[in-house]
Amino acid sequence: MTVIDKFKQYKIEEYFPQEEPFYLDVDGETEVFMACYKEKIPVTLKGPTGCGKTRFVERMSYDLNRPVVRVSKKDGAEDGKKTPLITVPGNEDLTADDLKGRYLLDGSFQEGAALIAVKNGGILYLDEIVEARNDTTVVIHPLADHRRSLVIEKLGKVYEAPDNFMLVISYNPGYQRKVKDLKQSTKQRFGAINFTYPSADIEQKIIMHEANVDEKVAKYLTTVGEKVRNLKGKGLDEGASTRLLINAGKLIRSGIDPVKACDVAILNPLTDDIDAYKSIREGLADVVTAYFPGRK
Amino acid sequence: MTVIDKFKQYKIEEYFPQEEPFYLDVDGETEVFMACYKEKIPVTLKGPTGCGKTRFVERMSYDLNRPVVRVSKKDGAEDGKKTPLITVPGNEDLTADDLKGRYLLDGSFQEGAALIAVKNGGILYLDEIVEARNDTTVVIHPLADHRRSLVIEKLGKVYEAPDNFMLVISYNPGYQRKVKDLKQSTKQRFGAINFTYPSADIEQKIIMHEANVDEKVAKYLTTVGEKVRNLKGKGLDEGASTRLLINAGKLIRSGIDPVKACDVAILNPLTDDIDAYKSIREGLADVVTAYFPGRK
Amino acid sequence: MTVIDKFKQYKIEEYFPQEEPFYLDVDGETEVFMACYKEKIPVTLKGPTGCGKTRFVERMSYDLNRPVVRVSKKDGAEDGKKTPLITVPGNEDLTADDLKGRYLLDGSFQEGAALIAVKNGGILYLDEIVEARNDTTVVIHPLADHRRSLVIEKLGKVYEAPDNFMLVISYNPGYQRKVKDLKQSTKQRFGAINFTYPSADIEQKIIMHEANVDEKVAKYLTTVGEKVRNLKGKGLDEGASTRLLINAGKLIRSGIDPVKACDVAILNPLTDDIDAYKSIREGLADVVTAYFPGRK
Amino acid sequence: MTVIDKFKQYKIEEYFPQEEPFYLDVDGETEVFMACYKEKIPVTLKGPTGCGKTRFVERMSYDLNRPVVRVSKKDGAEDGKKTPLITVPGNEDLTADDLKGRYLLDGSFQEGAALIAVKNGGILYLDEIVEARNDTTVVIHPLADHRRSLVIEKLGKVYEAPDNFMLVISYNPGYQRKVKDLKQSTKQRFGAINFTYPSADIEQKIIMHEANVDEKVAKYLTTVGEKVRNLKGKGLDEGASTRLLINAGKLIRSGIDPVKACDVAILNPLTDDIDAYKSIREGLADVVTAYFPGRK
Amino acid sequence: MTVIDKFKQYKIEEYFPQEEPFYLDVDGETEVFMACYKEKIPVTLKGPTGCGKTRFVERMSYDLNRPVVRVSKKDGAEDGKKTPLITVPGNEDLTADDLKGRYLLDGSFQEGAALIAVKNGGILYLDEIVEARNDTTVVIHPLADHRRSLVIEKLGKVYEAPDNFMLVISYNPGYQRKVKDLKQSTKQRFGAINFTYPSADIEQKIIMHEANVDEKVAKYLTTVGEKVRNLKGKGLDEGASTRLLINAGKLIRSGIDPVKACDVAILNPLTDDIDAYKSIREGLADVVTAYFPGRK
Amino acid sequence: MTVIDKFKQYKIEEYFPQEEPFYLDVDGETEVFMACYKEKIPVTLKGPTGCGKTRFVERMSYDLNRPVVRVSKKDGAEDGKKTPLITVPGNEDLTADDLKGRYLLDGSFQEGAALIAVKNGGILYLDEIVEARNDTTVVIHPLADHRRSLVIEKLGKVYEAPDNFMLVISYNPGYQRKVKDLKQSTKQRFGAINFTYPSADIEQKIIMHEANVDEKVAKYLTTVGEKVRNLKGKGLDEGASTRLLINAGKLIRSGIDPVKACDVAILNPLTDDIDAYKSIREGLADVVTAYFPGRK
Repeated sequence: MTVIDKFKQYKIEEYFPQEEPFYLDVDGETEVFMACYKEKIPVTLKGPTGCGKTRFVERMSYDLNRPVVRVSKKDGAEDGKKTPLITVPGNEDLTADDLKGRYLLDGSFQEGAALIAVKNGGILYLDEIVEARNDTTVVIHPLADHRRSLVIEKLGKVYEAPDNFMLVISYNPGYQRKVKDLKQSTKQRFGAINFTYPSADIEQKIIMHEANVDEKVAKYLTTVGEKVRNLKGKGLDEGASTRLLINAGKLIRSGIDPVKACDVAILNPLTDDIDAYKSIREGLADVVTAYFPGRK
Repeated sequence: MTVIDKFKQYKIEEYFPQEEPFYLDVDGETEVFMACYKEKIPVTLKGPTGCGKTRFVERMSYDLNRPVVRVSKKDGAEDGKKTPLITVPGNEDLTADDLKGRYLLDGSFQEGAALIAVKNGGILYLDEIVEARNDTTVVIHPLADHRRSLVIEKLGKVYEAPDNFMLVISYNPGYQRKVKDLKQSTKQRFGAINFTYPSADIEQKIIMHEANVDEKVAKYLTTVGEKVRNLKGKGLDEGASTRLLINAGKLIRSGIDPVKACDVAILNPLTDDIDAYKSIREGLADVVTAYFPGRK
Repeated sequence: MTVIDKFKQYKIEEYFPQEEPFYLDVDGETEVFMACYKEKIPVTLKGPTGCGKTRFVERMSYDLNRPVVRVSKKDGAEDGKKTPLITVPGNEDLTADDLKGRYLLDGSFQEGAALIAVKNGGILYLDEIVEARNDTTVVIHPLADHRRSLVIEKLGKVYEAPDNFMLVISYNPGYQRKVKDLKQSTKQRFGAINFTYPSADIEQKIIMHEANVDEKVAKYLTTVGEKVRNLKGKGLDEGASTRLLINAGKLIRSGIDPVKACDVAILNPLTDDIDAYKSIREGLADVVTAYFPGRK
Repeated sequence: MTVIDKFKQYKIEEYFPQEEPFYLDVDGETEVFMACYKEKIPVTLKGPTGCGKTRFVERMSYDLNRPVVRVSKKDGAEDGKKTPLITVPGNEDLTADDLKGRYLLDGSFQEGAALIAVKNGGILYLDEIVEARNDTTVVIHPLADHRRSLVIEKLGKVYEAPDNFMLVISYNPGYQRKVKDLKQSTKQRFGAINFTYPSADIEQKIIMHEANVDEKVAKYLTTVGEKVRNLKGKGLDEGASTRLLINAGKLIRSGIDPVKACDVAILNPLTDDIDAYKSIREGLADVVTAYFPGRK
Repeated sequence: MTVIDKFKQYKIEEYFPQEEPFYLDVDGETEVFMACYKEKIPVTLKGPTGCGKTRFVERMSYDLNRPVVRVSKKDGAEDGKKTPLITVPGNEDLTADDLKGRYLLDGSFQEGAALIAVKNGGILYLDEIVEARNDTTVVIHPLADHRRSLVIEKLGKVYEAPDNFMLVISYNPGYQRKVKDLKQSTKQRFGAINFTYPSADIEQKIIMHEANVDEKVAKYLTTVGEKVRNLKGKGLDEGASTRLLINAGKLIRSGIDPVKACDVAILNPLTDDIDAYKSIREGLADVVTAYFPGRK
Repeated sequence: MTVIDKFKQYKIEEYFPQEEPFYLDVDGETEVFMACYKEKIPVTLKGPTGCGKTRFVERMSYDLNRPVVRVSKKDGAEDGKKTPLITVPGNEDLTADDLKGRYLLDGSFQEGAALIAVKNGGILYLDEIVEARNDTTVVIHPLADHRRSLVIEKLGKVYEAPDNFMLVISYNPGYQRKVKDLKQSTKQRFGAINFTYPSADIEQKIIMHEANVDEKVAKYLTTVGEKVRNLKGKGLDEGASTRLLINAGKLIRSGIDPVKACDVAILNPLTDDIDAYKSIREGLADVVTAYFPGRK
């Protein structure tokens, strides 16, 4: 029995997005991403929470798996055209070994996310990487520069990433404190795409699609979102993400009163400050009246 | 013998609330919760300690197990209608592995709370989650957004949550310090229901039911509770929860003097400051006289 | 061989107080404790070190084991009437697993203190719990509220506490710093009994009994204790506990000079400040003269 | 079976640079490096991220493997002329054991990077070593002074480095905070070569070669780089490395608009400050006009 | 094979002081110690480093092993009269398990220092205990109060200390910072004996005995010691211990110049401040002249 | 098979200095060291980095192995005359177990450095011990005072050091911050020898010998060293060690320009401050002109 036999089994198919993720291009980010993919430039996605970074990278993975084969065959990637998406949510306890893999007590080797991505090709997406332990640098740097390689000391092997491998990381620049920031030597290994909230037009379409509500409700929610975002910095740490607006839409469709739906889905998650809540609620009064005249 | 054979045995039945938990709806939170459940929006319960968050979620679990079947069958959930309640008290040492599971020394795999909830369906209730280690984010985020999935790397498997799975978290916004707060990217994945102390009417009924005391004692305790809550911020960090009033009721029923009962059950737990104690005690003197004229 | 066979053996009899602990009721705390026990309200003992909290809880355990059976039989408790006392001194390294139990290298399961108490019934006394690691909350909260249960994930079982189980914790409110305090959600799960130094009368009897000295020596020591306690805050962090006075009595009985005995047993333990020592010593000069005229 | 048999297998050939790395000498650093190599003086490479330190050391390794044999045969080095390059990215979790090696659960010994380098000869390159755990000092000091030895306690052996072993470390003096600095006793064991950005002439050649763009684009990017570097300290923590300019070149060649390419490859990675971004963008307007008149 | 068979072997004889330690009583501490021993009052030794605390406790152990049997036989102590001395130097990494014991990988149980002392009787001396980890409290408190017991959870046993067991701890009150102090609940479980530097008379005798020097040299060193001790607080953190004077004496006897001997043995260890050194040296000039007129 | 059979094999011969280390006595330190060795007084070597502390102790070990046998035979030391040198570089992760030893997974016992030194006799040299973990105190104190013993709990044995055992530690008093300092109870167990930079005369001889350069180059470098050392505190944290001057000498001999050689070997390692560098460079201009008139 060789060491390889003892690798923990997993099905790479589990990592392919199965349905087309709904995503609308905002500012040419799709074209830039594809150019970076082709040029083997790793990419940072920068932007606030809930503005679609995860959805975007899922869509890119989905698109790259279409018959239009952009990628040449090479060692490691079985057929040279599949691009699975391996997502790792960054957190303070995420270590290099989580990415590389480790031996289990039964002697088998459990491959980490980076090794899975390098062996199979695909996008390795390290979400909110700024939260992770510093030793993840050991994995990120050699995968992000001209080396494109992953050393797994525990297996005594160096893996070279195939052509269809791509490293993508994300972080939220508005939210991160000075104390937690990527090192310049990390940042400068990546190209970076900035994300922000979508325009009212696009956001309305997204809400209608995702929450399955009519145009009036979607417009109502887009207006609420816009108003609330203007309050960022004035009592709110962060604006309302599109995700929150969608949740509110779902509750309205489910029969919850439009004001209560916004409370539960948007205001309550955003603030714990009762005064901030009241002042926002007041500022939204005419929006409610405009869209739901029967409601005060 | 397959790996599955070596899973630690447990009975999911142990996680069903067995008797109907006593809970009175305060402000429509039951309806909102059920809508979130139906729409698969995870929920945050926000409010001070002892105001009934845990009781509420127990009642929701109980109601969801009634014959009125709201949930469709799906993979993982054995019969598609049972909704057990898996509660995890958050604390500084709670890690992702506690939620996912781990191999024991005898080679069996001990399922964590999240895995139990995802495999069996049901409510996963992470109480005071703000206290937990940051790597729990790895479990929470994918379960709380459109993915609704749980990756157990150690088993090499991705579990998709069944329709009757719901993630519920709670925290106490008044109590938490700035240094300990949920990340925006976590908060914005949840709808949020605000809890506060019940109205005097409802609280009186709760005390009569739970402590098995008559109306006079219940009114006395509700009045004490109200007075003490007004002191929050003026010598008290936190108001008196309904739970404390119930404890006082039980002691009175058990023959302890009404003033001493309030000391033991309400004032002593709330403050260590002897001056604060005396000033509160004084402020309560006429309440005592009003309800127990024989007592000074 | 079942898992149960591999439990580490212990004799629950080791946890019964064998002789009647000497304890004098100060302010009705015995009656309150018994009411809490009956009403299943967990109790916090609050007070300075050495004022008899440990002795009190030992006496309560002893009393509960007398033929007067107050407790009904129920699952877990072998005969429904024995109430052993399981004491755990809190400290910064005390974790939930210390309370729950863990597997040893030989495959046996070593039950933790909480599991022993829940399986056998009895008082689980967590002394100075404020020092313990935060994850002990996982054990304390479900045992302290209406659930009265203990989840041992490693055994895949939920244990419900029998009727004769009671959770008691203690802390020293004067001594604890702001940085170390119980959470409100913990405090508000417990009734609380305040302890302080006994009155001169009672303390004198305690000293005579414990140190086996005559009335004169006991009065001398009570007077010394009173004087020293008045200095708390003026050079002393903490007053002299009854325990220190007893130690001084023992040394006097053993032939040590009364002044030296107070130095060794009372002043040296209380302060490292040579100036504070001298000033206290001076203040005690007339006490010495009054009781031991031959001594200057 | 001897202990040696159980060493984890690896191929030292994996550590030889296979193609000639493109590197242009800036200020005689090649000559100095070769003199240090000959004199067995370990070397520190100091300079900002992305200015070519890693590339330089790869080139040195490549050059040392050319037929011009500079190195005598000695114990440990198999043929006395090969100089592999073992690179270890420093990080907060890098320990001495990572460099020395450790026993795996199956009883085999996994050689650490330092042991591989000492046994095979070659350059041990500890990149950004200032980030590593302090116990790496145990490995670095004896290898960096006259002892040139490595003690592997777990094997009970002392390894003496062969003539063709060289220790190289790097750090970024502009970036490191006062709190993280090499100890003087470490610094003074090394010679040090200062790196900075290449001159415009050389940088232009590098960009043309690496990004495969024409002279105009390379000049455009060199000018952008120079302007951006002048802003270091005025809104930017760090200048733009040559690596960033190359990335921008690749994107332009791939059809991305020259302004957008600079955004994605240079400005977005460098700053999260929207005002800084706008002011830099403005300052670059005439550069764009000069090189791409059709573009505003 | 029983568990007992697998206990790691050790010879308790190794823990008996074999030669009479040289110790001169300073202020009746011997009598007080013996009274505490008889009354089962645990003792704290307080005082600066090198003033003889360790030597004192060694002498007490030696004296207690003389034919004059003070101790009754009881369970655990084999013959009821031997009092070995188990010394544990406190340090930041000392844990309760170090004192209790732990299972080794081969399945045997290695008894910790406290268990050895409790099983065999004898003095358990925890030197500079204030440095140890807080969980040592779990061992210290029950051994230091009326319980006199040691719970070894891993063996499932409670050990009661025999009559000839005594717990002794020490700390240096002048040296310890506010941040590191024993808890009051620990301090108040012990009697305390204060140690300081011996009087000139006694110290001279000690130096003559220990360093084997004549009276003149001993007087010279005692005078140096006295002068240096007066500088504590004025440039010196701590006075010169008797141990340092003895070392100086040994060097003088060994042929080193008296001034140099004081440098090497006294001043260099005490201060790193070159100015403090010079000023002390100057102040000692006439002492040197007085005792060694030939030396300037 | 006994436990002893399972000890990891090592050859004590590896720890004997094989060639006479070049060392010139500066201020009688050799005589003092030998007296301490004879009197069994452990020694602290205090002084800046690179001033020859390590070289000194190597020379002492070498001298002690000469035919002039100073040491009597005793238990543990095989022939009573060999004095190997066991060096341990202190660091933040160095623990007592590193010094004592530990069981490996295969059941063998790997002796730590202290155990090797105590069993074989010899000098145990703990370099920069102030960096190590505090629990090393457990090893250092009993080896450094009259006990001269090492307790290896894991083997259940107490080892008494043979006559030819000596404990030597070192630290750099100028470099260490207040936060990291040896405890007085450690310092006062050692005699201490102060080291500083050698006089110009001696240093010139050392450079000529070590770098194999002629007198002119050596004088040039000595002058450079002196000038640079005067700048300590004025822009430089630390003076240039002799080691740096030797490195510069080697580079000059190897054909590197004298100014560049000083940059690489002396100035670059010493400072990251470009202004400090320029000002030092300027100050050295006339030194260069004086020794190398052709060079400006």
